[in-house]
Amino acid sequence: MGVTAPEGFVAASAAAGIKANGAADVAIVATADGRPVPAAAVFTQNEVVAAPVEISRAHLASSGGHAAAVVLTAGNANCLTGPVGLEAARRLCRVAAEGIGCDVAEVLVCQTGLIGVPFPIEAVEPVLAKTVAARAPGAAAGSGAAEAIMTTDTVRKEVVIRGEGFTVGAMAKGAAMVAPNMATMLAVLTTDAVIDPTVLDQLLRRAVDRSFNRLVIDGCTSTNDTVAVLASGKAAVADAGALESAMTEACGQLAEAMAADAEGASKVVHIAVTGARSDADAERGARQIAKSLLVKCSLNGEDPYWGRVLSELGAAGIGVVADRVVISYGGIPVCGGGAGIRHDAQAVAAHMAGSNIELHAELGLGQGSCIITSTDLGHGYIEENRRTS
Amino acid sequence: MGVTAPEGFVAASAAAGIKANGAADVAIVATADGRPVPAAAVFTQNEVVAAPVEISRAHLASSGGHAAAVVLTAGNANCLTGPVGLEAARRLCRVAAEGIGCDVAEVLVCQTGLIGVPFPIEAVEPVLAKTVAARAPGAAAGSGAAEAIMTTDTVRKEVVIRGEGFTVGAMAKGAAMVAPNMATMLAVLTTDAVIDPTVLDQLLRRAVDRSFNRLVIDGCTSTNDTVAVLASGKAAVADAGALESAMTEACGQLAEAMAADAEGASKVVHIAVTGARSDADAERGARQIAKSLLVKCSLNGEDPYWGRVLSELGAAGIGVVADRVVISYGGIPVCGGGAGIRHDAQAVAAHMAGSNIELHAELGLGQGSCIITSTDLGHGYIEENRRTS
Repeated sequence: MGVTAPEGFVAASAAAGIKANGAADVAIVATADGRPVPAAAVFTQNEVVAAPVEISRAHLASSGGHAAAVVLTAGNANCLTGPVGLEAARRLCRVAAEGIGCDVAEVLVCQTGLIGVPFPIEAVEPVLAKTVAARAPGAAAGSGAAEAIMTTDTVRKEVVIRGEGFTVGAMAKGAAMVAPNMATMLAVLTTDAVIDPTVLDQLLRRAVDRSFNRLVIDGCTSTNDTVAVLASGKAAVADAGALESAMTEACGQLAEAMAADAEGASKVVHIAVTGARSDADAERGARQIAKSLLVKCSLNGEDPYWGRVLSELGAAGIGVVADRVVISYGGIPVCGGGAGIRHDAQAVAAHMAGSNIELHAELGLGQGSCIITSTDLGHGYIEENRRTS
Repeated sequence: MGVTAPEGFVAASAAAGIKANGAADVAIVATADGRPVPAAAVFTQNEVVAAPVEISRAHLASSGGHAAAVVLTAGNANCLTGPVGLEAARRLCRVAAEGIGCDVAEVLVCQTGLIGVPFPIEAVEPVLAKTVAARAPGAAAGSGAAEAIMTTDTVRKEVVIRGEGFTVGAMAKGAAMVAPNMATMLAVLTTDAVIDPTVLDQLLRRAVDRSFNRLVIDGCTSTNDTVAVLASGKAAVADAGALESAMTEACGQLAEAMAADAEGASKVVHIAVTGARSDADAERGARQIAKSLLVKCSLNGEDPYWGRVLSELGAAGIGVVADRVVISYGGIPVCGGGAGIRHDAQAVAAHMAGSNIELHAELGLGQGSCIITSTDLGHGYIEENRRTS
């Protein structure tokens, strides 16, 4: 149960032949009555963006922060596909708008998959038209949409958060290329809360910043990332703080689900850096550790090789003083005072053998802190990504 | 033939039990007459540095840019080993100084291996004393030293460059953790040219900047990197430009040898970015591509997936305009005008199947350019680095 959980939303999905294996690959999430509602979206920070990002940005700007539907496709990113690709993204929106009876600028579009491959719009258009016509309320419709957007994901990613008088539902896809700034991930949030579009935009940015943007899988930043939210207004007027909390919680749970499903990874790793001179320094240190191939390999091997962690902190340019750093795995300090310290190696080994690793570096310099969610690096990642065909 | 090729240098090596497999692991390179000569060194930019880096920096400062010898050990980085580790590095220098008859501050020390493991100085000291006593001229002595400093290297790395009236010899080790700024690599250069230590320092910095610092293997920056040079002055007064060229050529050949020997890699990849607004922008773009896990996996799979290359350029923050970028593999353009372009796929496949890949991105924005040497990412890298024991 995800995007159809809040009141006032319908969804549908189908297979249009974009995915070679014949699985569902187009989806629509729309307001139940087809009317536009307050909407917001956050897009990739990559300077090279896919056609759907350009179109969605333009639509959201011209509709003044309103949307009636989001069209999603998987298996082809429709990125670096030239003017034909832009027109294809526009056509997806037009088909949805016609079926729903809204303005074309009130439809957002999200696409994910391979870059640089012409998008098969001729084949997809009629399937999408039927999908739009088949839109329906209920858990099955929402889950179908969440399944249709999967690429290398192995599990569907949905979440529902119940607030005081309102509900937030969400779905996402993403299993790699996840870096600072949400690479190759798509997420759609829905809520029945009554909220102004400008406020909704602010809440979404803060929620994304403290969830998806704290997730580092392989450090790559994609061309297609989009997180969109639609607010039907069918429930109560939401307290902005409560809605922000619920949206942050929804995004956070989806980010954790992405880490758990990361390509070739066997561990979810929370990297906490505390005692930095500022939160920004702590974040820089935590990201440096999260992106380190050597640290990721150690985590895959369940090896508490703290030397590499400290080496990465030293390379982060945040004024680390080696003697002050304490590094712990699972709460057990293994390094302090600039050298290894005696510890219960069996307890550390037991922690490292689990599927969740807590890695903590206290820098002893100040009050800044940050937690980044990351993964190990396993052979499956290379297998998944060495060939596209 | 390497460090003993220029006139006035001797070397020796032995096994002191630091490496578990019993291979040679200590080496000395010294002036033949034991007298100090102009010397310079470049160290890691990591804020966390190993004991030998601290000691070598201090020695070079107090000797005013002179040294009579370099002691090297492999198998233990002597990093994050506390005051005991510092004293161990000092003792290595003291033993060498006593054997050679020079001042302790005229000895540099380089160490490489695991971080955070106490250095077995008691066992190494007597072996080093004998090694220093056995120092000798000739190719075999130089090659022995080059072998002793290997860690995960599979081949010895030596080079000799003949200049006009002078010679540059060099050896290096390094097969991973090589990033911007020479991570976990050691190199010793020798020359018989007559040169002032201040000038020598400038020449070394420029040579390193255009060779080792243009090599990216895994993006990690180590705690122990050192490139040192000693100039015996036994040959002619060198033209600074000619000496810089020879030193740059020596460092460049060693950097290529490191890329070819990189852990788990099967390809050496030259990433050229041209047409950037500045050389700095071009370098930023080339490094972003070189560090990308997704690009590295594609190269391993011999897959000319240019979409990831353009995506990384877009993530580099250098104002890339997708429509203007032309990406080529082996000189064959595969992307231009913001989309894929028709090309001879068989010719590209043949190029990708080789052990050297030329990847070129012309940005169409200006005159800035940079070439970074890099590698693919293979399963061997994970195997090599997932466990330290």
